[in-house]
Amino acid sequence: MPAKKHKQPAHLRSPKGRLGIWVFGARGGLATTVVVGARAIARDLADTQGLITETPLFEGIGLAPIENLVFGGHEVRNGNLHEAATEIYHKTGSLPFPTLQKLKPDLARIDKNIRTGSTLNAGKTIQTLASRKPRRNITLAGEVRRLRKDIRDFMSRNRLSRCICVNLTSTEPRLRLSGTHESLARFEQAIEHNRLGAVRPSALYAYAAASLGLPFVHFTPSNATLIPAIQELFERNSTPYMGCDGKTGETLVKSSMAPMFKYRNLHVLAWQGYNMLGDRDGAVLANAENKQSKVETKDALLSQILGYPLHTHVGIDYVPSLSDLKTAWDFIHFEGFLGHKMSMLFTWQGCDAILAAPLVLDMARLADLAKRRGESGPMRHLSCFFKKPLGVDDHDLHKQWHMLTDYVQNCR
Amino acid sequence: MPAKKHKQPAHLRSPKGRLGIWVFGARGGLATTVVVGARAIARDLADTQGLITETPLFEGIGLAPIENLVFGGHEVRNGNLHEAATEIYHKTGSLPFPTLQKLKPDLARIDKNIRTGSTLNAGKTIQTLASRKPRRNITLAGEVRRLRKDIRDFMSRNRLSRCICVNLTSTEPRLRLSGTHESLARFEQAIEHNRLGAVRPSALYAYAAASLGLPFVHFTPSNATLIPAIQELFERNSTPYMGCDGKTGETLVKSSMAPMFKYRNLHVLAWQGYNMLGDRDGAVLANAENKQSKVETKDALLSQILGYPLHTHVGIDYVPSLSDLKTAWDFIHFEGFLGHKMSMLFTWQGCDAILAAPLVLDMARLADLAKRRGESGPMRHLSCFFKKPLGVDDHDLHKQWHMLTDYVQNCR
Amino acid sequence: MPAKKHKQPAHLRSPKGRLGIWVFGARGGLATTVVVGARAIARDLADTQGLITETPLFEGIGLAPIENLVFGGHEVRNGNLHEAATEIYHKTGSLPFPTLQKLKPDLARIDKNIRTGSTLNAGKTIQTLASRKPRRNITLAGEVRRLRKDIRDFMSRNRLSRCICVNLTSTEPRLRLSGTHESLARFEQAIEHNRLGAVRPSALYAYAAASLGLPFVHFTPSNATLIPAIQELFERNSTPYMGCDGKTGETLVKSSMAPMFKYRNLHVLAWQGYNMLGDRDGAVLANAENKQSKVETKDALLSQILGYPLHTHVGIDYVPSLSDLKTAWDFIHFEGFLGHKMSMLFTWQGCDAILAAPLVLDMARLADLAKRRGESGPMRHLSCFFKKPLGVDDHDLHKQWHMLTDYVQNCR
Amino acid sequence: MPAKKHKQPAHLRSPKGRLGIWVFGARGGLATTVVVGARAIARDLADTQGLITETPLFEGIGLAPIENLVFGGHEVRNGNLHEAATEIYHKTGSLPFPTLQKLKPDLARIDKNIRTGSTLNAGKTIQTLASRKPRRNITLAGEVRRLRKDIRDFMSRNRLSRCICVNLTSTEPRLRLSGTHESLARFEQAIEHNRLGAVRPSALYAYAAASLGLPFVHFTPSNATLIPAIQELFERNSTPYMGCDGKTGETLVKSSMAPMFKYRNLHVLAWQGYNMLGDRDGAVLANAENKQSKVETKDALLSQILGYPLHTHVGIDYVPSLSDLKTAWDFIHFEGFLGHKMSMLFTWQGCDAILAAPLVLDMARLADLAKRRGESGPMRHLSCFFKKPLGVDDHDLHKQWHMLTDYVQNCR
Repeated sequence: MPAKKHKQPAHLRSPKGRLGIWVFGARGGLATTVVVGARAIARDLADTQGLITETPLFEGIGLAPIENLVFGGHEVRNGNLHEAATEIYHKTGSLPFPTLQKLKPDLARIDKNIRTGSTLNAGKTIQTLASRKPRRNITLAGEVRRLRKDIRDFMSRNRLSRCICVNLTSTEPRLRLSGTHESLARFEQAIEHNRLGAVRPSALYAYAAASLGLPFVHFTPSNATLIPAIQELFERNSTPYMGCDGKTGETLVKSSMAPMFKYRNLHVLAWQGYNMLGDRDGAVLANAENKQSKVETKDALLSQILGYPLHTHVGIDYVPSLSDLKTAWDFIHFEGFLGHKMSMLFTWQGCDAILAAPLVLDMARLADLAKRRGESGPMRHLSCFFKKPLGVDDHDLHKQWHMLTDYVQNCR
Repeated sequence: MPAKKHKQPAHLRSPKGRLGIWVFGARGGLATTVVVGARAIARDLADTQGLITETPLFEGIGLAPIENLVFGGHEVRNGNLHEAATEIYHKTGSLPFPTLQKLKPDLARIDKNIRTGSTLNAGKTIQTLASRKPRRNITLAGEVRRLRKDIRDFMSRNRLSRCICVNLTSTEPRLRLSGTHESLARFEQAIEHNRLGAVRPSALYAYAAASLGLPFVHFTPSNATLIPAIQELFERNSTPYMGCDGKTGETLVKSSMAPMFKYRNLHVLAWQGYNMLGDRDGAVLANAENKQSKVETKDALLSQILGYPLHTHVGIDYVPSLSDLKTAWDFIHFEGFLGHKMSMLFTWQGCDAILAAPLVLDMARLADLAKRRGESGPMRHLSCFFKKPLGVDDHDLHKQWHMLTDYVQNCR
Repeated sequence: MPAKKHKQPAHLRSPKGRLGIWVFGARGGLATTVVVGARAIARDLADTQGLITETPLFEGIGLAPIENLVFGGHEVRNGNLHEAATEIYHKTGSLPFPTLQKLKPDLARIDKNIRTGSTLNAGKTIQTLASRKPRRNITLAGEVRRLRKDIRDFMSRNRLSRCICVNLTSTEPRLRLSGTHESLARFEQAIEHNRLGAVRPSALYAYAAASLGLPFVHFTPSNATLIPAIQELFERNSTPYMGCDGKTGETLVKSSMAPMFKYRNLHVLAWQGYNMLGDRDGAVLANAENKQSKVETKDALLSQILGYPLHTHVGIDYVPSLSDLKTAWDFIHFEGFLGHKMSMLFTWQGCDAILAAPLVLDMARLADLAKRRGESGPMRHLSCFFKKPLGVDDHDLHKQWHMLTDYVQNCR
Repeated sequence: MPAKKHKQPAHLRSPKGRLGIWVFGARGGLATTVVVGARAIARDLADTQGLITETPLFEGIGLAPIENLVFGGHEVRNGNLHEAATEIYHKTGSLPFPTLQKLKPDLARIDKNIRTGSTLNAGKTIQTLASRKPRRNITLAGEVRRLRKDIRDFMSRNRLSRCICVNLTSTEPRLRLSGTHESLARFEQAIEHNRLGAVRPSALYAYAAASLGLPFVHFTPSNATLIPAIQELFERNSTPYMGCDGKTGETLVKSSMAPMFKYRNLHVLAWQGYNMLGDRDGAVLANAENKQSKVETKDALLSQILGYPLHTHVGIDYVPSLSDLKTAWDFIHFEGFLGHKMSMLFTWQGCDAILAAPLVLDMARLADLAKRRGESGPMRHLSCFFKKPLGVDDHDLHKQWHMLTDYVQNCR
């Protein structure tokens, strides 16, 4: 039996007080799964599979208990979490209906911590999803003030001394980066001058978090978020952060499987990957400009792991009926001894939110630990969770995993 | 581009003289592929993909050049290598016809080094394949003398001071092991007393190799081969050896992929594996008692890697039309966050001999290196090449790979 | 849009009064799905996909409306339908939880029509599942009287003039058939003499149905059910019947796909099929003697369709975690022009009960129609629904389909 | 055993004399496979699998024997057939090397019948493949005269009274059709006025064939070929023809499998198809404008068969290492009883030329038969061989097959 309900021994000190988790994109499919999961575990309605931080490896290093997490966040669509969760039940069955009935009060309480998100320069697809149009006459500086106030209010209302920010918004269209994004001074100038084209909502979110000294986990591929200017602010405020783009499905398998071909000097001729998904995320990605952000992070890792350029393809297609039950098919064509060609095919059928949600909780707890340990800058030991890990060039999942286990050993 | 034709820089010393490779099962599909491949590389008719020892990692540690390998061996069936190779061309296309035409003289030369193998207590299936019935009145002691003489003659005729023995015979029926196999003294007594039921041919082969102090690579799952008694003789003669059962297909993928599920605390509920193959090996395995040896080594590793017992199945079915183009299908059922069940399926389509042949050459070269370095006992650093590595409990391919790279670093 | 909610025009005469559906195996997974589905449709909680009798093709031929079906049956296990349905929700998600909550009263009403089934000579696996041991001193003749009485009581209590019997029990161990089963006279003698070894429960069920002149649909592969003796009784009572073994998954696909290879003179070399399933049915089939019944009906059809013998394999493996979400994998190896070998692989992931349930309703309605039209003997026009259609040699699904559409045309 | 070497009984009259097969695209991969196959069969070096006209069904209807076929054609690239065939051996292994060695003289003889093809307005991709640039000052009328002369010379040189023309050229870019293509008079005017933009090479080929009264098989999706104007000319000359786009792989499977979902009222939600191929054909299709022609014929049939619109996708990706070993992967998402979603996945691994070549021979023989029987216009009975059969709306493969078998019955 795998470690499911492992409880930490009493003598090991967990941090005192509750830990805030502020989620950008707070009622999206992933965020909804995160809060339903955390509350189901807290109320003993679910086991802890999927959470690596609940396995013996992480025992005794003082992680915040799941039951001490307090959720809030920003969201651009109206609605409530119980409705969002029920919609997920109807679409994918991944959230058990009886559990949702029992968690209804918990979810309603969290809804009270959710504020209106930003859609400034979010791109047409995302703006269409939003329930309200951005107010006229809004300035970037004013928007930042509002976002910061929302988070601070959440913390004081809930008497939280610690809070982690997590970006779970939909993938934004690629932002054209320039010198403006290279230094904090120039980026803050752009905000002062209200240069809308210089930001995406996620940039404002990350900037707000950095300015408050709150650790930040960037779970999407949006390129506007952890720009050098904002990294500078995190480091100035001695705050750890990490990104980009949670590694949950086909890319996870790729980074796990590619080394095998290297170990045997089997020459990979082609690696074709086809992803099908159908939820809001799929609809957003179906939009060509948002898709580009995604494919770029998915396609680079193979030649890095294998050490030579190869023919690759990463397709993402919108198949509405699948909803969040992503299905990926990969075809690997390789050449062995005497030039003989062989192939491997795999099909991955996973629910994206179910795969991603525990990573969000794992990383929030580890980010809290890092902050308490006085760490700052990119949390490289979290590279195994990301498609494009900041500050880490190696995409070999097994090496990335050892970076995490080494870190945990050091924490002891 | 992967390392295909990497040539070792001139200043690094390769060992002087040629290296004998004595193959038990010398005209089987795998052995035929080994010699065709080695000769094709030697004559620049083929690149070196598949051979890990031809990648930069192994540069400069003094491995015997491929062109210096001299082949001979024991075989129970009549025939010649060019015919055997042509049959493979017609069945799987894995050996290129024009190459075979060019190598005909090389193969004929090797045929002269092939002697009649042993079928003593080999089991009905294998005895049926053999071209001759075992001579009457033959004794175990006499058979051992004959096998040893064949190898020594090969070495003196070809002026070889070094020779590696490799067991590539078909899987034998499981031998019931007893105290007789635990100590060299008792095993040699059994030979003296001509207790036929105490041996299989592979035991005689390994015993002959050990008694001559020749390194031994046991590439099959037969359990009679590297019994403790014979290991004792290898160690007494300060000779390295390794086994059992080359890891080339479905098991390779399993040992590569299973760690990923552990890294994410995804609970594997079931891992079903179905193998189809159709060559002589398949025919031998279709025989229930030979199959048992095989399935046992294939089925154990998952729970070792994952750390808990799970529902597994490994099927091997004989599909004549596939010949050596083994096709495997695996279904992995796993449970993630909130108990949600997901699945992964893979299909592996590889030519077994093509996958295995370079491993034979890699290990022969590394065994020669180990012998020259004065090593003795199981070559644990070769664990990544075996389904059931002697003296190594860890089946995680990635950890096994690092055992090899660490060893190579140490050789420098 | 496919035909989902097609309603029959008012002017076409449906039969008056309600139609009884007496289910042997009344609380099994399939039966539970049948009644939940029928009641959900009756209450407008579900659409009618899967039911071919709700498509325009069947319009106006006077089928009994779904809302007029009244359910009862025999069952060897205790429990109630709502519990059984909830268990299915938890295991496969195939029955929507909110729907089950709404149908609770309907299901409780049906529970009142369920009586204790028979386990006489059912085999160990099935007897273990049963909640009660068979009463001592029970005789075959007495058991038949009891079964008949249960059905008659159901009909009179619910004022039903028409009733269809459906066998949905688990696959029984193969019964050794003899002259006893060839004629009604001899079979009735065996019952009189209480020769337990001459029957299985399904034989008693079918005999009871035949003696009451109630149409009978035999949905399982059990060979004891529609023996010649019992067919004789059905025909004496001018009653239609059909079997054996509902064609719902891998075999359906096979019978649909095999003709393509014939159309192109592509020589199928091997067709390997691997089925995995995990529910009660799987547990029963894991028992070797029950499995034999199943594999026999699945394996014969390919050479019939293709016209030559070929290498085939049908495996059924028990994978508990899959429950009723059967997963099948088929590998088809074929030879084309110039002897070139190619392959096709398919994976079928279907919920067995969901695929089978509408067939049960379709056939019950068509059996009622046949009875009202005065038909008797095997309903050959239902061959497309069976793996082993009685009285029909052709397994080509497309030809079988045309037998059904021709029949429907004739009904007009 | 399937019908492999079925020889027609002597008493049935085959047509006297030899039959010319004029191939447009005469040294492409498909054409090379066609001639190698026909000659290998003629010389008893190969069996006749793949050829439906060699099965008992077609016995005794007077088809031209394979050994009586004489090949010639137009080709835009230089080279010779033996080289082309040897290249295919090296890339896919589909043409056996020893057979090619034996057929070398036959192939050289056919090379003498091959003339330079046309590249007028063929589009950039195809023009790049061509060995020569089109001569300056060439007119459409002149080009047509040249093409006609080449064919007439071939016939007279080989003393052929009958000849079939087959279009096997690469897919051309879509031609914008207009009134010009609607009537023969206007189309001939365009040729007179040398309006290059009104034609593609395949239009000239078809026009030449029609003007000579030679039956024509259009095996590609190019839309410029069988335009109404040219059909008018075929009919004026009482000549049969058929197209478009040979149905050999994924589409064949689709048209075979889709009816099954209809038979069970399973609502297909999505059918995603991904094709990968790597030969010259793949390179041509990788060009966006040529690809469009292809995808259009592949995507339409599902909603026709199923009777409702559905979410479909047909992707074609260029994977050079696959060469002609096309690999397709289809994902079918469908909804059954109670709205439960299920899926089927299939992988098709077939060598395109091997699948297509026998169809070319089958249709050439059947076109010859039709011409001799005095038929004219589209040969609707050949619809099962085409993705977009002229004059036939039904894409159900099984119904199409019965059109062919009915035709054959009528020929008796």
